[in-house]
Amino acid sequence: MVTESVVRRALEEVMDPELHKSLIELGMVRQVRIEQDRVKIALALTTLGCPLRDQIIGDVKRVVSALEGIKAVEVELAEMSDEEKRRIGIGVTEEGAAEKLNDFCRVSAVSSGKGVVCKSLVSGLLALVLRREGHQVGILDADITGPSIPKMFFPDGARLGTSPLGPMPPQSESGIKVMSINLLLEQEDQAVIWRGPLVSGAIKQFWGDIFWGTLDYLIVDLPPGTSDASLTVMQSLPMSGIVLVSSPQDLAGMVVRKAANMARQMGTLILGLIENMSYFKCPDTGKRYEIFGPSHAEETARRIGVPFLGRLPIDPEIAKLCDAGRIEDYTANAFAPIAQELVKRMPEARQPIFQQVHAGR
Amino acid sequence: MVTESVVRRALEEVMDPELHKSLIELGMVRQVRIEQDRVKIALALTTLGCPLRDQIIGDVKRVVSALEGIKAVEVELAEMSDEEKRRIGIGVTEEGAAEKLNDFCRVSAVSSGKGVVCKSLVSGLLALVLRREGHQVGILDADITGPSIPKMFFPDGARLGTSPLGPMPPQSESGIKVMSINLLLEQEDQAVIWRGPLVSGAIKQFWGDIFWGTLDYLIVDLPPGTSDASLTVMQSLPMSGIVLVSSPQDLAGMVVRKAANMARQMGTLILGLIENMSYFKCPDTGKRYEIFGPSHAEETARRIGVPFLGRLPIDPEIAKLCDAGRIEDYTANAFAPIAQELVKRMPEARQPIFQQVHAGR
Repeated sequence: MVTESVVRRALEEVMDPELHKSLIELGMVRQVRIEQDRVKIALALTTLGCPLRDQIIGDVKRVVSALEGIKAVEVELAEMSDEEKRRIGIGVTEEGAAEKLNDFCRVSAVSSGKGVVCKSLVSGLLALVLRREGHQVGILDADITGPSIPKMFFPDGARLGTSPLGPMPPQSESGIKVMSINLLLEQEDQAVIWRGPLVSGAIKQFWGDIFWGTLDYLIVDLPPGTSDASLTVMQSLPMSGIVLVSSPQDLAGMVVRKAANMARQMGTLILGLIENMSYFKCPDTGKRYEIFGPSHAEETARRIGVPFLGRLPIDPEIAKLCDAGRIEDYTANAFAPIAQELVKRMPEARQPIFQQVHAGR
Repeated sequence: MVTESVVRRALEEVMDPELHKSLIELGMVRQVRIEQDRVKIALALTTLGCPLRDQIIGDVKRVVSALEGIKAVEVELAEMSDEEKRRIGIGVTEEGAAEKLNDFCRVSAVSSGKGVVCKSLVSGLLALVLRREGHQVGILDADITGPSIPKMFFPDGARLGTSPLGPMPPQSESGIKVMSINLLLEQEDQAVIWRGPLVSGAIKQFWGDIFWGTLDYLIVDLPPGTSDASLTVMQSLPMSGIVLVSSPQDLAGMVVRKAANMARQMGTLILGLIENMSYFKCPDTGKRYEIFGPSHAEETARRIGVPFLGRLPIDPEIAKLCDAGRIEDYTANAFAPIAQELVKRMPEARQPIFQQVHAGR
């Protein structure tokens, strides 16, 4: 006959998908009542708004129904008290609490020095190619005063999610996690008129106060320039390296060399140089036009002393898809080999941060 | 016969081109010696490095040679003592001294929110069109971490000039004065890794410590974003207004709306919106391609509630000329009507700063 301890033993198999521990270990199973062939279970979740609630309930029902003689399983939900939360070590969310729980394998920034090269597009394409290969991918939009990542990935806008471990980045259709200042604004065209310290503070919060969970790759989209945002990212975040994006104009080459010099001075590895907007292939004649002038990218890469990773043509299709929030529909054929070349050169983050819960398993 | 007083009277006609007073009034003529048909003049300049030295010497020789019976004029140069300089009211250069001497009629910033629109090109074109119309024009490159103006105007590089009134911006071939952080760097690709306060400080110095002289138009090229540089320019400089530059991508439209909202909040007049990179006209077929997607500029201008000033095509020619430092060779046919539309809407700077020397004339 099924006893409470049989049910509890069965529930040891059910893991909290966020905390990677069993519901029993986490003290979430408050009560188990058995009435003949029916089991009633009172569960205390970290928050009733938990986005993974249905998954947990489903797992509980599946495991308990499988016990011999059990015909029905009812689950009652409650929310953990602050005391209960503290006991399992997540406490009430404190500043920076999520940082201990985030686990990033590789962190790479995309930088250009100058915005004229459409660097955010490269960040977006890199994320989607990695995601298609089955990786867990996030984008941290460090361009606080000119954020453009959310618009590429969310056709209907997006808002920050919540979890007891901190705010959670929304996921794109294919499952890319995105954090950006624009997720916090009432209106996407609201100006964020902040001086440097606030910009730096926001980037640090995007890193440490947001619950990203486990990611294989975190792409950091840097704003143009070598001021506060870039400085904070290179100084405060453990980076695997930085990707430089240039355009054919020599002007862009000069500014990308500045970005390279900054990375050198900060001790950040430069993974390589990508040239964007290399040429326009006329759809009617197939002829290539170097509309931003002849390429200097290979020469620039040589001058900086970094690998040249490849060039991307101007594709009117991509502009349309980005505007529609559907960058994930892009085939990205030209970009896939560049991304693979890049990933080969990307070491694990210099100071890997291990998820405490992982370490405790 | 020519006497010293005849010579001195003649020299009352020779003006210092910077100070707009005669050499006599300025006490620059230290000694006049007459030996038969030869005149020797000892001149004390404000500085021996005075870039207008040859002009002054030429003027002196021309005026004195014209006196009856004079066959030769020799000019010996010396530098004024600090005491002499103080006596004529220019003193030894103090911080911000130049600010009192600068006289800007109209000050306009060019902003985009996002760098992807090649806003510096618009700043450059605006300056060259105004200069061709005969105006005195300067460009203050407020993009401290990604400066691109000097490279467009100086094929062989440029350095800051000196004058007793402060450092002087170099002049392009057509006479446009340019101030940029890159004029102060040893290497153009040196990274300026500065947090906001230093960036703001540099912009204020470009305004107040640089001797611009009298300008009809000062164009301020803003970096992308709504952080320190833009804030400092809108808060500290007396602006006639701001020009917004967008590109066809809706993404760029969103970010330019942020820039517009910033200007509104800062009480800066928005002169209008220019769309750059509107389309590419195929040189072989004449067909137009909207390679960054269909235009949203008129809609964006309407949403912001500002005049739409016009659109600029992508022209491979301009990329080449900019890279070669020869933007002034560009015909700019497409831009001239836009500039005229813009200038019509540009009021004189809100708090005009009068040149003290002018006021004293």
